[in-house]
Amino acid sequence: MITLAEYLGRRLRQAGVGHLFGVPGDFNLTLLDHLTQVPGLAWVGSPNELGAGYAADAYARSRGLAVLVTTYGVGELSALNAVAGSAAEDVPVVHIAGSPATTAVAARRLVHHTLADGVFDRFARAYAEVTVHQETLTADRPTEQIDAVLSAALTHSRPAYLSIPSDLATLPVDPAPLAHPLPRAPRTSRPTTNAEGMIPSADGQPEGMIPSAGGQAEGMIPSVDGEPEGTIPSAGVASGAEVAAFAAAIWRLVDGAERPVIVAGHLVARFGLKDLLKSAQVPIVTTLAAKGVVDEGDPLYYGDYAGTMVDESTAELVRDADLVLELGTVATDVLSGFFTHRVVDDQVVMVGATSATIGTGDEHQVHFADAVRVLVDLLGGKRFRLPQREPAPASPAVAPERALTQEALWATVQAWLPGGTAVLADTGTSFWGAVSLRFPADTVFVGQPIWNSIGYALPAVLGQGLADPGRRPVLFIGDGAAQMTMQELSTIAAAGLAPIIVLLNNEGYTIERALQSPDAGYNDIAAWDWGALVGALAGPKADYRRAHTAAELREALDAAAEATETLSVVEVVLDRYDAPPLLRALAARNSGGAE
Amino acid sequence: MITLAEYLGRRLRQAGVGHLFGVPGDFNLTLLDHLTQVPGLAWVGSPNELGAGYAADAYARSRGLAVLVTTYGVGELSALNAVAGSAAEDVPVVHIAGSPATTAVAARRLVHHTLADGVFDRFARAYAEVTVHQETLTADRPTEQIDAVLSAALTHSRPAYLSIPSDLATLPVDPAPLAHPLPRAPRTSRPTTNAEGMIPSADGQPEGMIPSAGGQAEGMIPSVDGEPEGTIPSAGVASGAEVAAFAAAIWRLVDGAERPVIVAGHLVARFGLKDLLKSAQVPIVTTLAAKGVVDEGDPLYYGDYAGTMVDESTAELVRDADLVLELGTVATDVLSGFFTHRVVDDQVVMVGATSATIGTGDEHQVHFADAVRVLVDLLGGKRFRLPQREPAPASPAVAPERALTQEALWATVQAWLPGGTAVLADTGTSFWGAVSLRFPADTVFVGQPIWNSIGYALPAVLGQGLADPGRRPVLFIGDGAAQMTMQELSTIAAAGLAPIIVLLNNEGYTIERALQSPDAGYNDIAAWDWGALVGALAGPKADYRRAHTAAELREALDAAAEATETLSVVEVVLDRYDAPPLLRALAARNSGGAE
Repeated sequence: MITLAEYLGRRLRQAGVGHLFGVPGDFNLTLLDHLTQVPGLAWVGSPNELGAGYAADAYARSRGLAVLVTTYGVGELSALNAVAGSAAEDVPVVHIAGSPATTAVAARRLVHHTLADGVFDRFARAYAEVTVHQETLTADRPTEQIDAVLSAALTHSRPAYLSIPSDLATLPVDPAPLAHPLPRAPRTSRPTTNAEGMIPSADGQPEGMIPSAGGQAEGMIPSVDGEPEGTIPSAGVASGAEVAAFAAAIWRLVDGAERPVIVAGHLVARFGLKDLLKSAQVPIVTTLAAKGVVDEGDPLYYGDYAGTMVDESTAELVRDADLVLELGTVATDVLSGFFTHRVVDDQVVMVGATSATIGTGDEHQVHFADAVRVLVDLLGGKRFRLPQREPAPASPAVAPERALTQEALWATVQAWLPGGTAVLADTGTSFWGAVSLRFPADTVFVGQPIWNSIGYALPAVLGQGLADPGRRPVLFIGDGAAQMTMQELSTIAAAGLAPIIVLLNNEGYTIERALQSPDAGYNDIAAWDWGALVGALAGPKADYRRAHTAAELREALDAAAEATETLSVVEVVLDRYDAPPLLRALAARNSGGAE
Repeated sequence: MITLAEYLGRRLRQAGVGHLFGVPGDFNLTLLDHLTQVPGLAWVGSPNELGAGYAADAYARSRGLAVLVTTYGVGELSALNAVAGSAAEDVPVVHIAGSPATTAVAARRLVHHTLADGVFDRFARAYAEVTVHQETLTADRPTEQIDAVLSAALTHSRPAYLSIPSDLATLPVDPAPLAHPLPRAPRTSRPTTNAEGMIPSADGQPEGMIPSAGGQAEGMIPSVDGEPEGTIPSAGVASGAEVAAFAAAIWRLVDGAERPVIVAGHLVARFGLKDLLKSAQVPIVTTLAAKGVVDEGDPLYYGDYAGTMVDESTAELVRDADLVLELGTVATDVLSGFFTHRVVDDQVVMVGATSATIGTGDEHQVHFADAVRVLVDLLGGKRFRLPQREPAPASPAVAPERALTQEALWATVQAWLPGGTAVLADTGTSFWGAVSLRFPADTVFVGQPIWNSIGYALPAVLGQGLADPGRRPVLFIGDGAAQMTMQELSTIAAAGLAPIIVLLNNEGYTIERALQSPDAGYNDIAAWDWGALVGALAGPKADYRRAHTAAELREALDAAAEATETLSVVEVVLDRYDAPPLLRALAARNSGGAE
């Protein structure tokens, strides 16, 4: 027998988790005492839970799963915004809350961190609003409950909630289930094919070929610590027969298509299917939530698609297509250019996490990974004529010695930005500037355009940096956003990360100035001495520069790029009313700010 | 007709609210544009919502009501921990969340700050777990809804939730109800007395006198801006007949008592009844949630009561009493010395916000303020022999040049602390040190011993300071707590407040080191340069000193006290394992940390 905490820790290792984000508190101390003893699990304590939650979110985007550990009530509630963001953006974060002992709950004792009313499930109910699965562990079947939470998070790419009463953390449990990989992907998930790769049709007749592209190798998570390997979720909700039925139903549409287009959404990144897409050999456009999923120099990349807002040419491509494969997209206001996207018709296939719908009503209960594999396999068997691509627009000329404008800022970044980085952009002018960039090869992008919580991206540097240490984070964040969660700078420094942080100082909430009431006092923030702050939180080794002109900015960026081991902050001084063109476009469409 | 926003603003002014705490976001901008135009309402923007929520909590404790304004989803969820704390600690904060337009909700549009699923009431449901009343405004009866939310918060001394769709902020509404004070106290709330002050008994026979002590003058809120005055809630849930029935039921118990004691809980402070208590002329002990409610030099003050934990003499007093009036107390683990308090028996009266229970079962639906008035009136008509008081223990001797210990720290503070301040203490060693102090005259105390969320007390300085500008805040906070919410230091400075902030630097979460696992790495925090941080956030005019010895601490405190207009931070360097005696006592009772 092993402790429950060890069981949990070893399951997490199997899923590729190497770091635990969170904040200790008295109801999780016993859990932490044991969880941090599991080889390969490192504790990453944050100053507060919101920062830890955001860090976990970014880690999960990169690693496929993350864990956030908080204490009951005071801890877990402070992270709710972060976990809700993970829900909105389809990110698999398992939130583990240490909770009062089962004995205290049974006796309805008035313990601290409650509302002093003997009610203990209030916060779990709040979490039920934003998580795909919730369990409060019991002594009866704790390992089953743990596995259910992890499986749900992985299958749906959604946050899940696990409350662990403090007296159960060391409960002896049977480790036997650990010998079997997490049951996140039923073994019958691949369509049953015969020796020739034929998919049986619904009525038993062969209807289409499934080439072997995108086979097992792709979905494997590297084995760690000798634990059995898992595969990324490949079916979750579907049997092989259901996948086959989807393939049979979609085959004719694919076969008849001449101008197909893939709209790659964020679920492509979440389920680790970036590389699979390209074997389809059809034009790909990316939503703003999936920017970077396809290398922007790739011949198959046709630009970003947000209805008619970001790029007219992608809107046209989608409009004129005779088959639109919406792979893990969601048409929110921001992502759809305020509902100027092509709405679902008979030639549109919507593929979500656990179902795929052909046209306006033919819904199949298949997992995203299965549906994408089916589509890519079918498309890969055909040859389409690729339309001509619009040349990327030239960057505007920049006056190097003038006071920086948003236009000059982003043109300077465009000319400088090296490949191989992770670009993180907070909500606001930073996001709209960053998505206007053409990314160099091998750029990972982290933003939050569905949930749009300002302050997300600084803690996200912590999660992204720890998850993917070979890739330098480059963060763009406004001063209003940075004030939200600035304490995470100290965690980033303590973790030994060396991001480049471009801080856009425009004296407040410029996105709100652009949207409404430009001169309202509530959009102003208290002025901080950012240079002193960087020294206070990140220590004397961190590097800080301030840029007023394009020339100073370029110099600062070059110096930061040179100092590869140094945490570098570049404060960019901007006019408070200046905004990137895309944000102006957004504001024009969002008249009133409240639609 | 006036706008809905103006109606709300004028109602808030009637209730004594002069400041709006919060963070702007696109769903509340129209509301803010109009609310901030109401004369007498000042906007106090915070770097993040958690800080704003904590500030609002402290403001409400002082002013009797506070308002927190956030935006939908991303904003409101970040404040949930703060509002849950207001619920646990019975603090009337009205949380106003700007939400998507009614038209967007009706169309189930996929707007940002949602989970992109067309569901709009998730966050209101989360808030229903921690608020006493919730309304999402409709065009049908918005002023009624506003009044219901404010009344509920005031009557119950609890947080309440008001969601205002962005397109309703400027809805024209009839201002007529504003001519009548908020219906928070039904006009029939005082017991019906005849000309001689007789309370009719349940069967119509006169049974007791109600002297006129504690009459109208006490409950009045000063008129502001010519708006009609309100009174503090005095009945809420009770009719005069119910109050009379309570008086009749309690009368014999009071009349037969020889050794009564009042246990003053936090509701005494919340409902503004501090001064009323003393007219009873019986011994008063205070819970740790109500410390400071009675001047500690007052002959009626007999010490703090937390079961047998804090003060054996108060435990004895309560144990031996033949009438225990528990006025707005709650026996949580921390407040009851881990359940060593006197449990309810026939001689105990529990008075809560909206009901009072005599002995183990005789419950009356009377409001706290009414019940307390009845009790004080009845007690005031008798004369009790006051027992002898224990002399206050002498402070331990302090070696002025030695490295500071927790004992020396608090002895030095005890010798220095001037009267007329507001003492704020964060959870942890700060709280347990502060409650070991004997407070000088006219000291207000702000702590959070029921909810115990670390990081509360720094933003609380903002709320307390703005609510009660004549009283200098003196904050005790640990470094772990300060890291949670440190950005509020900039709001405090921007608001022109000049608190004295004593920062206990013991390199992490010493309360957890005392409770469990003293050497666990998760209790360590990243080292910050606090001097640089104070300069970065509060500007060069703020004062920062560092004290290693009692002599240095005393010098720093004296200098801070002298500089009455200056925000002063005194960093106190302490051993990471050292804890005040009361925290050690707590840890000993809380074996396992999780009971």
